[in-house]
Order: sequence, then C-alpha cells, then structure tokens
Amino acid sequence: MKFVIIGGDAAGMSAASRAKRTDPDMDVVVLEQTHDVSYSACGMPYNIADPQRDMEKLVVRKAEVFIEKNKINLLTGHRVTAIDRAAKKISGITIEGDPFVFDYDKLFIATGAAPVIHDLPGFDLPQVMVLKSLEDGKRIKEYIIQKNIKKAVIIGMGYIALEMCEAFEKRGVKISMVKPGPVFLPWLFSDLADVVYEELIHMGVDIHSGHSVQKIEPLGNGVQVICENLTLEADLVLAAFGVKPCSGMAKNAGLDLGMSGSIAVDKYLQTSDKDIFAAGDCADAYHVVTDSKCWIPLALRANRAGWAVADNVCGTRTCLQGVAGTSVFKVFSLEVARSGLNFKEALDAGFDPVENTVKTRSRAHGQPCSTPIHINMVADKKTGRLLGTQMLGKEGVVHRINAVAVALQCKMTVEDFSQTDLAYAPPFGPVWDPLLTAANQLIKKI
Amino acid sequence: MKFVIIGGDAAGMSAASRAKRTDPDMDVVVLEQTHDVSYSACGMPYNIADPQRDMEKLVVRKAEVFIEKNKINLLTGHRVTAIDRAAKKISGITIEGDPFVFDYDKLFIATGAAPVIHDLPGFDLPQVMVLKSLEDGKRIKEYIIQKNIKKAVIIGMGYIALEMCEAFEKRGVKISMVKPGPVFLPWLFSDLADVVYEELIHMGVDIHSGHSVQKIEPLGNGVQVICENLTLEADLVLAAFGVKPCSGMAKNAGLDLGMSGSIAVDKYLQTSDKDIFAAGDCADAYHVVTDSKCWIPLALRANRAGWAVADNVCGTRTCLQGVAGTSVFKVFSLEVARSGLNFKEALDAGFDPVENTVKTRSRAHGQPCSTPIHINMVADKKTGRLLGTQMLGKEGVVHRINAVAVALQCKMTVEDFSQTDLAYAPPFGPVWDPLLTAANQLIKKI
Repeated sequence: MKFVIIGGDAAGMSAASRAKRTDPDMDVVVLEQTHDVSYSACGMPYNIADPQRDMEKLVVRKAEVFIEKNKINLLTGHRVTAIDRAAKKISGITIEGDPFVFDYDKLFIATGAAPVIHDLPGFDLPQVMVLKSLEDGKRIKEYIIQKNIKKAVIIGMGYIALEMCEAFEKRGVKISMVKPGPVFLPWLFSDLADVVYEELIHMGVDIHSGHSVQKIEPLGNGVQVICENLTLEADLVLAAFGVKPCSGMAKNAGLDLGMSGSIAVDKYLQTSDKDIFAAGDCADAYHVVTDSKCWIPLALRANRAGWAVADNVCGTRTCLQGVAGTSVFKVFSLEVARSGLNFKEALDAGFDPVENTVKTRSRAHGQPCSTPIHINMVADKKTGRLLGTQMLGKEGVVHRINAVAVALQCKMTVEDFSQTDLAYAPPFGPVWDPLLTAANQLIKKI
Repeated sequence: MKFVIIGGDAAGMSAASRAKRTDPDMDVVVLEQTHDVSYSACGMPYNIADPQRDMEKLVVRKAEVFIEKNKINLLTGHRVTAIDRAAKKISGITIEGDPFVFDYDKLFIATGAAPVIHDLPGFDLPQVMVLKSLEDGKRIKEYIIQKNIKKAVIIGMGYIALEMCEAFEKRGVKISMVKPGPVFLPWLFSDLADVVYEELIHMGVDIHSGHSVQKIEPLGNGVQVICENLTLEADLVLAAFGVKPCSGMAKNAGLDLGMSGSIAVDKYLQTSDKDIFAAGDCADAYHVVTDSKCWIPLALRANRAGWAVADNVCGTRTCLQGVAGTSVFKVFSLEVARSGLNFKEALDAGFDPVENTVKTRSRAHGQPCSTPIHINMVADKKTGRLLGTQMLGKEGVVHRINAVAVALQCKMTVEDFSQTDLAYAPPFGPVWDPLLTAANQLIKKI
C-alpha cells in the first residue's frame, strides 16, 4: 500500500503519523512544499508579540523526527502541481527545480488554505506581508525588530487581524485597521461587536471600516495605503483579507468542489474519487446544526480529520461527525467565543430563528474583580433547538463555549440546555452560569 | 391560594419571588428562622479571606426588599417546628418566643442542610465553630480579627474545609486538618488527590488523615483537639464534618424520606403529600447518569428547583431533569472540578466502568505559562457511555467541566464526545482540548 499525502501540516502529518502507527510497513510519503511541518501556526501572533521568544519554539516536531523516528518518507521543498487520477500518479517540482513523480494507491490532499491576495498595485512591495506560514511569521518578526517599525496598517478585520493587533501593540507599533465592508465585525451581534470595537479604540487602534483599498505606494522607507477617501501611512502592511482553500489542483484533476471552492468530501473524508481523500482547511465538512455542507477552516478539525483519513486508508472505516464552527480568540483583555450559527446564518439555513442577548457577570455576587459577560444566543422557534451562541468578556468565556458546542452536537433544545447542571463556585461565576441565564431568557421568546 | 414556604434561602426565596412575579395576588408567606435571606453562602470563605471586605457584601437582597418591593410576606426569626398535614397548618415559635400558626394550600419545605455536629466533649466550646449561616461566617471572621488567631484546626476535608484553608492562610493562620478516614480525598482519583495534597503541603497545611477526634479541651485562651494518637493545639477549630438534610420536620409529619435522609420528591418536586413540595439541600433528586435518586446538595439545583416549585404551585406543570453532581472548587492555586460518577460510584450503580487518567496541558505548544491539567474520565464498557469526569489544574479547569455536564445530560458516548467541536486558541488550550485527549485515550479501553 502506497499512501501519498500532499501537504505536511496539521491534517497531513496527523494522517501520516497515525497511518505509520497503525501499519508500520505502510509506505507513507508526505510531500510538503515548504520546509516546515508540524508547527503551531495559530501561536504566531503571540510569539511575534514577544521578542525574547524564539519562533522555533512553535515547532512541535521537526521534519527529521518524522523521518527518523516515525519512518515517514517526508519530503519537504516538494511542490505537487498535478494529479493524474487515471494513472494514479502525482507530479511536481522541488524547490531546487527538479521534477518528481510518485504513484499512489491512496492519495490524501491536505493542501490547506492560503491567504487571499488581491491583485492590486503595490501588494508586491517588501513592506506588505501576510501571516500564514512559519516563514511569514519569521519575516514579520524580524522586520519589526530590524526596521524599528512604528506604524502598521492591517487590511482586514478577521481573527488574524485582531490577534495581530495585540502583537503589534505589545511591540510598541501603532496600528490602523482598514477594510471595505461598512460593518466592523458583521458576523458578531452588534452589542458584542461594539464591546470589541471599544476595546480596540481603548488600546489605541484606529479602525476604518468602509474603505476599500485601491493601491499601495512606496513612501520613504515605508508605504502609503491608498483607500477610497482615506490614505494611511505605514512602515509595514499586514494583508489579512482572510483565507481560501487550496483546491486548484483538485479542481484541475476533476474532483468535485464544495462550499467556497473547497474540496467536497463525504463523512469519511472521501472526495468524488474513492482513492482520494481530502481534509483540513482545503476541504468542506458537514455542520452539526444544519446537517449541510460548510467550509470552516479550523485547526482541531484538520487534526481530527487527518486521523480519520489514516484510519480509513488503513481499513478501519471511520465516519466523522460535523463541525459546530466553534472558535475563540483573544483581543487584548477580551475573550471572544462562538459556536454554531448566528441569527443571519440561522435564517439563511431555513430555520425560524429567535435571538436574545444578555449581560451577566463573571463571578458571584460579592466577589471582587467580577467583569461583564455578554451572550447572544440563537434558537429555532419551531423546534426550540439551540442553534448557536456568541459570547465575550474579560474572563471565563473561552472554555464556557464548549458547553454550547456539546449541546449543538446533541441537537439539544434551549429548554433542555437550561436544565444542565453547570458548575458553580463564587470565584468562577454566578450560581446561574451566564449560559444558563442566557438560555432562561431566550426560552421566553420561543 | 395561600403558599407557605419554610426556609428563606436559595430555594425558598427563588420560589417566593417567582410565584409573586407569576401571580402578584398570591398570598406568599416565607418563614425563615434566621434574620438573613438571599446571601451567597458559598462566598463566605473568600470573604473571610479579606479583612477589608464587609460580610454584608454577600447579601444579594435584604429581607426588606422582598417585603416592600416583592410584596412577599417574609417573616424572619420564625422557626417552624411542626407540620399538621391533616389540618394543612404549620406551627412554630419566633426568636422572641412567641408561638405562631399558619394554614396553607400549598406548602414548600426548603429547610436546607445543617452542619453535622458530633456529640463529643468540647464541641460546645466558644472556640469551636461551624460555617453554614451568614452569622457563622461573621463569627469566624470577627474571631480571627479580635483574637488575633494564629493556629486553626479544621476537622474534615470536604469542600468547605478545603476552601477555608485558603481563607485561613490568607489571614496568616497556620492550619492543621484532621479527619478519621485514612484516605485524604477518597472521592477523587488518587493521582489527582495527590496533586491537591501536594498543593496543601506546599502552602504549609498539616494534613492528618486517619485520626478520629475524641474530644476538645480548653488550653489557655485556645483549645487542644484530642484525636486518636494525635493532639493538635488551636486558637480556633472549624468543625467541617459535612452537612445533612434538615428533614426532621418532614419525617415527623410522615413524609417519605429518600437518599441520606433527605425528603423524597418526584421530578415535579412533590413529596409523598401532593400539597407539599420540597427542594434544595433538604430534598433528593434524580441523577442524570444513573436515573436513580441521589442527594447532592448544591446551590444551582436549589435555585432551579425553587423556580420549578413556584411554577408547579402557580399551575404550570414543570418537570425538572436530574443533576449531574457538577461541582468545582478552588484550593490555593488549584481549580478542581467534577461531574458525574467516579469509578466506584459507577460500579456501585451497576455499570461496567472503565477509567483512564491523562495529564495534558493548559495552553498550546510554544505558549508560555502552560501548566498541567490532570483528567480522570470514566465510561461504561458495555454501552460506551460517558459516566463522569474529574479534573484539576491551575487554569482552564472549572468552565471546561461544563462540557462534560452537558454530555452527561445527553447520555453521550465517549466516542461521540470525542468528536465534539471544542474551542481552540493558543492562550487557552492545546489544539486537542484536554477533555478530547482524555476521551481519545479512554476510547482505547472501551
């Protein structure tokens, strides 16, 4: 059995390691276009924030370990360019320019996602960067140190943009954020988005929603970002427009694509070709709330799906349940979390949604240092089902959302959720957990 | 409709307020033997720890507010002593010695639990205290200040005992703990109990398991606690043997008793007399894991059950689901949490239990300040069902247990739980949440 994996990040390396553990005799080949495998990409903003911390600390396991210890035929600097499904071969070119070809019995496409780059003038200037690979992270970090950066412009207001605000601020860099859309965080309920907005303003971040970027021009040692009705000067520009699935090769090979151009897979991670699997940020998934396909690129799913692919390749038929789109991030002193659908997503998915927002507190009555927790909860009026929750606060938010993630997986009603026996101790929350208060209030609207 | 409530704490006042909100014309009488209603009893150890914080800050709502604003006929200093079910009357005596009688249409017994006090010589000495009522808390706090306490002995090693360790330590009081049982925290998996033990030792607490207390004798201004093979000197003794349900009056009235001598109620909180409800620490409950009766006195349940009693009295038939026994506490720098059954409880309940313990970490690879998280997880080998989880660590423990509480309510299998879409961000956890790692490992044993 020859098992070839394209991409040596979360999904790819999880699959390779698990396949070799299950079947040490299997011929497992991983082709990775960069030189870095198995590192904590999500940790980069926090690492960049601290000049004393080596970027290499984010590397969980070096390529040599996979090769020597796990006996995986891991080839870095190998960029796969085409899949020949009829011949069951993949071909590509190394970083040194040498072509290569591998045949496979089972192929796993784990090519991930890539930053969206707009084809606008000036985006190729050296001061304009993206944050995706470890190389990107190193480049930004070194640039901040070497060029004594004072001003940065972040284009986009997604998770990476928000997390990088904190990193830049910690390095004494003044930040401006800009994006074309008029609404600051459109996916977040407005009252909650306002709290994030205030936090950013409080930390000295300039926010410019509703200005599309037209071009970037050199200006002295830096650049100027020229937007509609706005020009921003910067020593460094972070282009954080979001990511898109790396599915071009799959498309060229005639595989079915799914949501947002990601590779369509079934619950066994199989593509439209039974010998080709796809998983991680390049593939779609079922959503536990809608039971429909979605594309929500997140690290846990990539790792989990990598394991499942390995199991399926090794002969243990393994079905993956859906994702709930649980995501959390930190922006300065705030924790922000969501799981499931927001009101608009619920409406679009055909539910009859009803939502409610509560402001509760992080600790019990009489406890010092209690801070507000804001929760927006969405349910289906017809069935009473819990559809999603967003919450934020200065403490006790990120791990609480997990209770919602489990409830969504179980398709619980808000009524049933309101009866769960959640934890209580004065330093950690009120008797009625904030999520229970949110559920109790939402029930009244159902 | 005359609705009489015995006991003005969590369950009683929740019921009274809700009944008046639902039916403002209802004649709601609450008879409370102390002068304090609606205060955060669980907050007392944390308040005692801080001499600057007024104990009154724990009072959520004063009696006058319930009387004037909520129009509840709340009578403090009224101790009910008997229930005449045939005549539908209760009788008692005020703190001033005046007898009283009230008739009822519906009666709610919310008498709570009382500290277990052993009938041993010296337990009536003024240096020997319990911590249950707000008066108890004030007495301990004042005593520490006025008598310049240097040494305390805590008898018992339950939640209150452990939380009071931290309070005493913060006040510069040297602590010895003693109890008759040989095992330090028998309900906690031994590896986890060892971590708590080490934390206490590290903070200078002397722990003496396996010494039954025989008597307490005066010694100078303090006392000596005379145990089997051990004598401990103290300026103050906290008797924290645990609590027992206050069900004597119910028993005398011929109502059925349930687990641990608590008042037996159905899922509607009805006792064996259809006109008498009971809830809170004095009553039993169904356990979501076993579907059998249990007695687990906890604050959330008392509040929730109080509401349900009010709804049932007001005509909205309301059924309560069970409890999972979710409880969390803080002991110095450690957070300890549990939900569901431990291995022994699972065995006793007739399951075929299997358990596994993992040590993971609180933050992602490469993040500083990551600390260990220990998790013991129990499943049923026959069905694969998750039966319970215990966990501890220095951060990220208490709110994580809520995911388990929800899973137990849904009677989830460990396999399904292992597929839940839990949150990930580097400052808050590894990609594989500690609970997922625990589940993934436990699956291998099922």
